[in-house]
Amino acid sequence: MAMDGYRGFLGLLVSALLVGFLSVLFTLIWVLHYREGLGWDGTALEFNWHPVLVVTGFVFIQGIAIIVYRLPWTWKCSKLLMKSIHAGLHAVAAILAIISLVAVFDFHNAKNIPNMYSLHSWVGLTVVILYILQLLLGVSIFLLPWAPLSLRALVMPIHVYSGLLIFGTVIATVLMGVTEKLFFALKSSGYSTSPPEGVFTNTLGLLIVVFGALIFWIVTRPQWQRPKEPNSIFLQPNGGAQEGVEGSAINFSNVDKSDSELNNEAAARKRNFIVDEAGQRSTM
Amino acid sequence: MAMDGYRGFLGLLVSALLVGFLSVLFTLIWVLHYREGLGWDGTALEFNWHPVLVVTGFVFIQGIAIIVYRLPWTWKCSKLLMKSIHAGLHAVAAILAIISLVAVFDFHNAKNIPNMYSLHSWVGLTVVILYILQLLLGVSIFLLPWAPLSLRALVMPIHVYSGLLIFGTVIATVLMGVTEKLFFALKSSGYSTSPPEGVFTNTLGLLIVVFGALIFWIVTRPQWQRPKEPNSIFLQPNGGAQEGVEGSAINFSNVDKSDSELNNEAAARKRNFIVDEAGQRSTM
Repeated sequence: MAMDGYRGFLGLLVSALLVGFLSVLFTLIWVLHYREGLGWDGTALEFNWHPVLVVTGFVFIQGIAIIVYRLPWTWKCSKLLMKSIHAGLHAVAAILAIISLVAVFDFHNAKNIPNMYSLHSWVGLTVVILYILQLLLGVSIFLLPWAPLSLRALVMPIHVYSGLLIFGTVIATVLMGVTEKLFFALKSSGYSTSPPEGVFTNTLGLLIVVFGALIFWIVTRPQWQRPKEPNSIFLQPNGGAQEGVEGSAINFSNVDKSDSELNNEAAARKRNFIVDEAGQRSTM
Repeated sequence: MAMDGYRGFLGLLVSALLVGFLSVLFTLIWVLHYREGLGWDGTALEFNWHPVLVVTGFVFIQGIAIIVYRLPWTWKCSKLLMKSIHAGLHAVAAILAIISLVAVFDFHNAKNIPNMYSLHSWVGLTVVILYILQLLLGVSIFLLPWAPLSLRALVMPIHVYSGLLIFGTVIATVLMGVTEKLFFALKSSGYSTSPPEGVFTNTLGLLIVVFGALIFWIVTRPQWQRPKEPNSIFLQPNGGAQEGVEGSAINFSNVDKSDSELNNEAAARKRNFIVDEAGQRSTM
């Protein structure tokens, strides 16, 4: 399907994939080359799964999940399939984030280090809980068929906003985590001499910021939004006028769910309802 | 002028002001009560201006500058006045951010502590430079009268995106700064026992995240956008169709500059051009 500025999109997508891939690679090099490596034994090797799983799942996979509707070659796929991929990728990210927390708590408990005292841990745990809530609410309201359309229309702007807020907060939390770990690992005096590990891991931090910036640009360009189905009637969830401020409200709010989709689903549900009703009648 | 969801807007605005004010207050209590206080003598007293100026200017004032077009009681004011206030507040924030950097460099140099080794410093200096560039470009293109409308239309989506990206990155940098300072000030073992200063300053970090979240919500609600002037013709900077995806592109891109404004300015410039041309002719 045609897309405005396809080459620009492709360039940014490839850049995002490259920078995301480099972020994961840098994290692996950090823990395997500069730190102790990986293991699951309550030592620093277990802790090291924390950055690896967070950057792989909670940054890279979450970022891809956010922009998955925007890939133009998926526009011929059904919305249900794309929603399943969106939710599936977020679920994988959530599982990796949870395992990454287990690794830290295990490590802390084995070493008698207190848990949950730093700002990184406060914001990090909050954002993991919010991410799981966002995933459960998203699946319940948008993927499963029972939520009324009015509820979907009401929740969609919040879903988009909180999704992007969570993603941004995850990146901020990773930057705090890198800072914390470098002060621990190098001690403050060692870090201040800019050793190779410090420079390398600062670069990792910059890569993650650039990855986030690319994802935010891709997901907020309205011309790269999954298009409405042809011949659909425009549904106005908030009953607003169909132009100007209200028009943009609907379109921006429904970054990942066009109004026509709501409308098509309404039609599909109506059909299903008639079938169900007919089924019930036949058994009455 | 009427605004959709005025009470909701007011509630969020008051919350943002309250949380922003609390963030500044907490920062002052932190440096005055828990740390050494304030001064300008190359000691920790001078360093302490860094968090105070950053949270006051680079977080609170920048946040207010971002949402200033959305205050409905300013909608009767001219766009030029509002642009001047927007740019003026950002300029104040930039000056405070620069002084906050001077305080840190002064302190480091007086104590022979190396500069620019931490991820906080890398991201922080980058974001201050980007902020100043954003301010200079914004003033040159949108406030001063000589940029052609096509250039304004082209740059506006980038201006909005980079403004919000910079604001988010500033908040992430503040969280890194809090983390860094607490590890220095309390040493890692002291921080891990969750002393009052640790809990208090973590709370400051959370307040700043909530402030950012409120500003992002307020600025991305299209129904709270400054309305177009009445009787204006809709300008389409990208030549796109006036509905659906393209419509939202224009509206979201121009968060702080409605298309009608561009159009009205076009008319005003045309008049000015005719006047100028006439003036030139009279002196020829």
